[in-house]
Amino acid sequence: MSRESLLVACAVPDASMAEAACARQVQLTKPPGSLGALEHVAVQLAGLQKTRTPAVDRVWITVFAADHGVATEGVSAFPQAVTGEMVRNFADGGAAISVLARTLDATLEVVNLGTMNDPGELAGMKRAWIAPATANFCEAPAMTDAQLAAALGAGQASVRRALAAGTELFIGGEMGIGNTTAATALAAAVLGEPASALTGAGTGLDAAGIARKQRVIERALARHAHVRGPLEQLRCLGGFEIAALVGAYVEAAQAGLPVLVDGFITTAAALVAVRLRPDARPWLLFSHCSQEHGHASLLWALEAEPLLDIGMRLGEASGAAVAVPLLRLACALHNGMATFAEAGVSDSAASVTRVQA
Amino acid sequence: MSRESLLVACAVPDASMAEAACARQVQLTKPPGSLGALEHVAVQLAGLQKTRTPAVDRVWITVFAADHGVATEGVSAFPQAVTGEMVRNFADGGAAISVLARTLDATLEVVNLGTMNDPGELAGMKRAWIAPATANFCEAPAMTDAQLAAALGAGQASVRRALAAGTELFIGGEMGIGNTTAATALAAAVLGEPASALTGAGTGLDAAGIARKQRVIERALARHAHVRGPLEQLRCLGGFEIAALVGAYVEAAQAGLPVLVDGFITTAAALVAVRLRPDARPWLLFSHCSQEHGHASLLWALEAEPLLDIGMRLGEASGAAVAVPLLRLACALHNGMATFAEAGVSDSAASVTRVQA
Repeated sequence: MSRESLLVACAVPDASMAEAACARQVQLTKPPGSLGALEHVAVQLAGLQKTRTPAVDRVWITVFAADHGVATEGVSAFPQAVTGEMVRNFADGGAAISVLARTLDATLEVVNLGTMNDPGELAGMKRAWIAPATANFCEAPAMTDAQLAAALGAGQASVRRALAAGTELFIGGEMGIGNTTAATALAAAVLGEPASALTGAGTGLDAAGIARKQRVIERALARHAHVRGPLEQLRCLGGFEIAALVGAYVEAAQAGLPVLVDGFITTAAALVAVRLRPDARPWLLFSHCSQEHGHASLLWALEAEPLLDIGMRLGEASGAAVAVPLLRLACALHNGMATFAEAGVSDSAASVTRVQA
Repeated sequence: MSRESLLVACAVPDASMAEAACARQVQLTKPPGSLGALEHVAVQLAGLQKTRTPAVDRVWITVFAADHGVATEGVSAFPQAVTGEMVRNFADGGAAISVLARTLDATLEVVNLGTMNDPGELAGMKRAWIAPATANFCEAPAMTDAQLAAALGAGQASVRRALAAGTELFIGGEMGIGNTTAATALAAAVLGEPASALTGAGTGLDAAGIARKQRVIERALARHAHVRGPLEQLRCLGGFEIAALVGAYVEAAQAGLPVLVDGFITTAAALVAVRLRPDARPWLLFSHCSQEHGHASLLWALEAEPLLDIGMRLGEASGAAVAVPLLRLACALHNGMATFAEAGVSDSAASVTRVQA
């Protein structure tokens, strides 16, 4: 993805379609507002998809996998070999996101951007190899300019494949041992927060492990304290899969494709995408609040109100996948319910008159 | 339902199957606990269904409809005719729960226990007529002994039909203008709480309407202050549909059929069911926290942690229906994911060794 690509304006949601959807919601046979967030979702999707009948039947999920130089600092509960092993597990259909995608009848694409433990070519996996891992950002920028461009471009290319397949909703996911460390460092730099405010347990560190991870992030933030701007912060503190997510989100927003954001790491990518292109924000729906410590702060910074809060913290796009049925039901209700007039049901105005009489 | 039926012990969940499910969750290719509540749901269903492969494919939803004498006090934003009109809307397929049941491929049964506006016999609707409405409980007990028994029996009969159809999960819903008033009065009596602690907006009252409703509930609580025991409180302050839900929940627990509880009114019924038979509690899963003011207190009293909190407040079993896909995905993940050994993925123990070395 070229830097010029980031200068392209995002698509503009159709406000009149969203207004028409609002008007319809009030006419459906239920107390106004009683479907809660499902009403907001239907209205938002109507505006984004520029239609009276929003739908998310065709869902595309891309999981971007990559390894992180900072993993050598001992910041994860799992060994680095797991990234490549999990790429194979995705391809074999045994991972959580594999099961979820099958159950939801969603397309699952796995893009390997570079893993220390190389699973090689696999059926059902795209190879967009950049390097076995980023550099350890405690000592150097995580990526070169060329590597950043390649990662952004891999995300952009994935969304273009999704668009060509007629996708109605794009979901990005990630796999990379050490990537909560990268996402935390990146988000802390972008938000100007201390590491202590955002550092969490990741895949399952104990208190000593979290303290160690926080010190690693503090070293990284000190090393790159001079870095300014979200793109350069992404290059110095991000990861290949995080940059790919940024590229994917920007491309989706430019193309007018709604995105459902997953958990902590994808929200860090969404934060960078929105700092790069504020007009990308309307295209991002938020699926869940992860149990990862810093996620609520990132959601708050994006003024995002996710649908679910069920203690998930897996990544892989799993939280977003679990929220897909809620979006589908929101669309089914919006499109399929009868209005008061169609059903011959009295609305509340009749009652107001009666009670006041 | 006879009073003797309430003396029958509930089924006992299979603790060894729940333990086996726990052990399996730790072996699946994800950090332990990272699927959050979805892990708990799978483990709970394994114990309830006494199986290694829990499933909620065959879902049965019964909506019990009935009118309330207390509606004449002006406690709802909607006119009383809406109860019967909505029964017709359920049968015609235009209501929220009609759309949800279709989309989820769930069986929807509508049981009319008595409405002021009688829609008559309708295809797809069961008639279990008790009376056009309960008595106004500000002035008299809501039900006679015979009416209470009939309502409990209607719920019991519905669950028996569900069992005969091979149902894996039972959901009860309700429709009845004025029934948040009945549920609030009943719950306040059972919990010994003042009306002010539990009274909410129902279908959409403004502040003056809520104050009026609270005074009505206070009159009812004063009128029946001498009443002791959950069954007699149900008779004096409940409604036909609330009693039917109590009968359904007790029957399901006795038969060993898991139940997914919906919102405020169904939770009030669940509270009565659990006070009548504490051994019914393990069979109740909770779907969502309604926006209705008192719901959180009722959930707390039942030590219930619902899956969703998305501002819904419609009733009709709609909140439970929206949570069904989460239960299905929890089962799919539990049954379909690969273990670390199967996938050849390193687990976290390897990392602990490495980091300590």
